[in-house]
Amino acid sequence: MSYEMNIRKVVPYTPGEQPAGKVIKLNTNECPYPPSPRVMEAIRATGEEELRKYPDPDCKALISAIASYYRLSEDQVFVGVGSDDVLSMCFLTYFAGDKPILFPDITYSFYDVWAEVYRIPYKRIPLKEDFSVDAEDYRVENGGIVLANPNAPTGIFTGLEDIERILSASPDSVVIVDEAYIDFGGESALTLLPRYENLVVTRTMSKSRALAGLRVGYAFGSPKLIKYLSDVRFSVNSYTMNSPALRAGVAAIEDHDYFCEIRDKVVATRDRAERELRELGFSFQKSSTNFIFAEHKECPAEEIFQKLKEKNIYVRYFRKPRIDNYLRISIGTEEEMDRLFEALREILSDR
Amino acid sequence: MSYEMNIRKVVPYTPGEQPAGKVIKLNTNECPYPPSPRVMEAIRATGEEELRKYPDPDCKALISAIASYYRLSEDQVFVGVGSDDVLSMCFLTYFAGDKPILFPDITYSFYDVWAEVYRIPYKRIPLKEDFSVDAEDYRVENGGIVLANPNAPTGIFTGLEDIERILSASPDSVVIVDEAYIDFGGESALTLLPRYENLVVTRTMSKSRALAGLRVGYAFGSPKLIKYLSDVRFSVNSYTMNSPALRAGVAAIEDHDYFCEIRDKVVATRDRAERELRELGFSFQKSSTNFIFAEHKECPAEEIFQKLKEKNIYVRYFRKPRIDNYLRISIGTEEEMDRLFEALREILSDR
Repeated sequence: MSYEMNIRKVVPYTPGEQPAGKVIKLNTNECPYPPSPRVMEAIRATGEEELRKYPDPDCKALISAIASYYRLSEDQVFVGVGSDDVLSMCFLTYFAGDKPILFPDITYSFYDVWAEVYRIPYKRIPLKEDFSVDAEDYRVENGGIVLANPNAPTGIFTGLEDIERILSASPDSVVIVDEAYIDFGGESALTLLPRYENLVVTRTMSKSRALAGLRVGYAFGSPKLIKYLSDVRFSVNSYTMNSPALRAGVAAIEDHDYFCEIRDKVVATRDRAERELRELGFSFQKSSTNFIFAEHKECPAEEIFQKLKEKNIYVRYFRKPRIDNYLRISIGTEEEMDRLFEALREILSDR
Repeated sequence: MSYEMNIRKVVPYTPGEQPAGKVIKLNTNECPYPPSPRVMEAIRATGEEELRKYPDPDCKALISAIASYYRLSEDQVFVGVGSDDVLSMCFLTYFAGDKPILFPDITYSFYDVWAEVYRIPYKRIPLKEDFSVDAEDYRVENGGIVLANPNAPTGIFTGLEDIERILSASPDSVVIVDEAYIDFGGESALTLLPRYENLVVTRTMSKSRALAGLRVGYAFGSPKLIKYLSDVRFSVNSYTMNSPALRAGVAAIEDHDYFCEIRDKVVATRDRAERELRELGFSFQKSSTNFIFAEHKECPAEEIFQKLKEKNIYVRYFRKPRIDNYLRISIGTEEEMDRLFEALREILSDR
């Protein structure tokens, strides 16, 4: 049929598996602890009127709670359906020029998917041998830059002095710093906001606030950049955030104590996991995230991945250049990690 | 700043006002009755695990419930964050060619906004003098067609024989029939699905299922067209539907009796409203929707709109060519409509 020629054909992003049943799920960087009890209360308190009527298109209550938590003004905050929605809107809004946008060769695998779907030219900048970012590599003509910091799936944090170097070398480009994992380590680029008009920082409630299923992400930027982003958002869907998400998002951001409690537990388990994995013969860079990106000195990653799956333990494996011998292991509860270490000991001693 | 040249600048869609406080809200075509009690139960039953983990990216349970309700196969169904999200994805997917897409000059005012944001060339086809669609007008070269049926804000239903004429005249274009209001009148193009591979039908739970605040929309099409749409959706955001929406959407579609009950009440009130408005000197075409699009023989629409607002009654007024003397009045409860008629009597007798 000839309507085919009018169709946008794409190779979509492949999300990590969501297996059903009793498995240990260390493959999509979810938080192993439940969301704040205040979030659960907020969901249960959703009223008939909130569902019957359209939600607030301006998401005022949520934006106001986020702005006040981060000591920003409301016109510096944008919210969306997870940071994927926020980032997708950012690509559509800020990367509408003709020059290629830049991002690392090893990074969140959605960046090239968004570039493809929105027909944005792009160029992958190879990370250094040790997977670190060399800020000098970004000193080339570009139509925008996006950096995950800490980076995924490497888990490595790039210092703010390098982020600043990149921002100041490309004043004519919007630079997006995707801080999905920042709560687990590193320093936020938020402090650079007053000095760099071209900076946009994105965040998510999916990881550190245990709310992957609620779909709430947000972004910070100058009032001008946030306005452009909102205009595009209102040109795509005026009501992206449903009432339960708007309500529960406020509860999540307001429960700071609970947030600290579960984040600290994840970080403590990560530190222990680093010791255990090293003893098992894995090597990796220091993680600043809620996962460890590791390779084993003897056993191929794909083999470990398959054998763990047979034991109902899911980790993430990417069959991609440079990283096809690595596993990305999300930090679970202490008990889940015990089961992982035990399984790894079995797999590695069986060889 | 020169990053400005990389920015997509748009004039966004303006949603109807969402006034706070005690008002009679007849301006955004919401259902005046609460959602099904089963929906409220489903929301309250949302569990910690559903929020902690990513939702099912394939939305299987919801798609399966919708497919079974409409007796379709699951690969003929797509779901999104309200029909706005569904339509936006349809525009992005199906209208990627160079030829202009077609839609009526008076129709849902988001169509040209989506065309603008995705840089799709478009051409408005004037409705006839009486606001009806002339199928022959669509027999021109095009890259796609979108028709709201019943149309908004006119409320007029176009017969399926005309829809069929349009479908068969443009076999090389995807034709989207936006049936946001079909539950209130007219006949669905769903029956044409087996015969037209180029047909996509979109729906929403916002109106007839009283769930504007939950954001659930859906689409029907051939497995091939639905696959293209899903691929684009997975290239924009893998997890658009949050867990509360996935759960409550199933409950809403399954409570057929409640759906019939509230739809019938709205239709009965609309029939009464048509009599009352005619007596007050309004004229309008027969409505097939949950609103009436009316003009008054003596009093300008804008004046009535303003005076109703002063009385805390909100209706919708569009300051646009051809329709700037019309009001779009959503059907409320019997009591809300009584208050409206009373207010109109006062306004009209004061002149």
